[in-house]
Amino acid sequence: MRALRMFNHVSLDGYFVDADGDMSWAHRSDPEWNEFVASNARGGGALVFGRVTFEMMANAWSGPDGAARNAVVAERMTAMPKFVFSRSLDGVAWRNSRLMKGELGQGMRNLKAEAGPDMVIMGSGSIVAQLTSARLIDEYQLVVNPIVLGGGRTLFENAERVDLELIASRTFGNGNLVLTYRPRPT
Amino acid sequence: MRALRMFNHVSLDGYFVDADGDMSWAHRSDPEWNEFVASNARGGGALVFGRVTFEMMANAWSGPDGAARNAVVAERMTAMPKFVFSRSLDGVAWRNSRLMKGELGQGMRNLKAEAGPDMVIMGSGSIVAQLTSARLIDEYQLVVNPIVLGGGRTLFENAERVDLELIASRTFGNGNLVLTYRPRPT
Repeated sequence: MRALRMFNHVSLDGYFVDADGDMSWAHRSDPEWNEFVASNARGGGALVFGRVTFEMMANAWSGPDGAARNAVVAERMTAMPKFVFSRSLDGVAWRNSRLMKGELGQGMRNLKAEAGPDMVIMGSGSIVAQLTSARLIDEYQLVVNPIVLGGGRTLFENAERVDLELIASRTFGNGNLVLTYRPRPT
Repeated sequence: MRALRMFNHVSLDGYFVDADGDMSWAHRSDPEWNEFVASNARGGGALVFGRVTFEMMANAWSGPDGAARNAVVAERMTAMPKFVFSRSLDGVAWRNSRLMKGELGQGMRNLKAEAGPDMVIMGSGSIVAQLTSARLIDEYQLVVNPIVLGGGRTLFENAERVDLELIASRTFGNGNLVLTYRPRPT
């Protein structure tokens, strides 16, 4: 059984996108942070997305702009297996992507049972909330950014209540805090 | 000029009260945590509240139930000067409380200019959001609880965007994380 981990940036008030759907407030480049991001990208694994985040990621990383932004990340994002949960898409063009139709919970249970690397879900707030309620996320990694946004969308909108265990916390010089949690057994 | 600090519990998804206005999910008693709370209470200072939180606090700590819950905290909460911002209240019965009428920002500027101990605002989400936008809060202390609520109220509803500096972080055995931030100068 392979694991599913969530990785997302959030503001101090808990939003992963601001009221305009923007995530650019989360970018705090410095050598220490860039090395953390590149090391994550080198770590391998498979990626899981909803449609909105998949399209944003494909846009950001699949073309020449992506390579210019961060060559290591762009190359790794393209090489990694990607699973896209969408009812409306008919196909996915980005290399190594697989479109998942049908019920989310069952689709994720099937993916977990397949052989393959562990999976990481990024962005994809509505899917994170549903998978949280279904208790299918094994680990949550949140980057708490030192900013108050005042509005936006949370990762857990209408999710069922889940008690967590704090596994690790790491502070960066740019003010980011990387927190790792696991659900407590019910 | 005395300082204004905010102190609040939040869930991992950023809520200080759940969808029913409840805060009981935040109570994680153990000796290490209780000592932190008692040490905060011994620290002195003045308290600032909006009406809703003031009434909840007066209810919780001003009677015999409060002393039974935690004698040190109840005694300190009663002894500390308390400022209550409310348009609807006509008076406040809890000892050492002072009712503040009129515009919030000006009222807080006046309080800061008065001689007296530093102030701590607890709960009081709508006042926290307004004082944040007015840049009148000098330090934010958040206790991030290891729980996803799925809904509730944030401390910064419709606040203006504020960049912060992470000053300190402390992890507790019960999974709570105490984070201290200060606004970055604009």
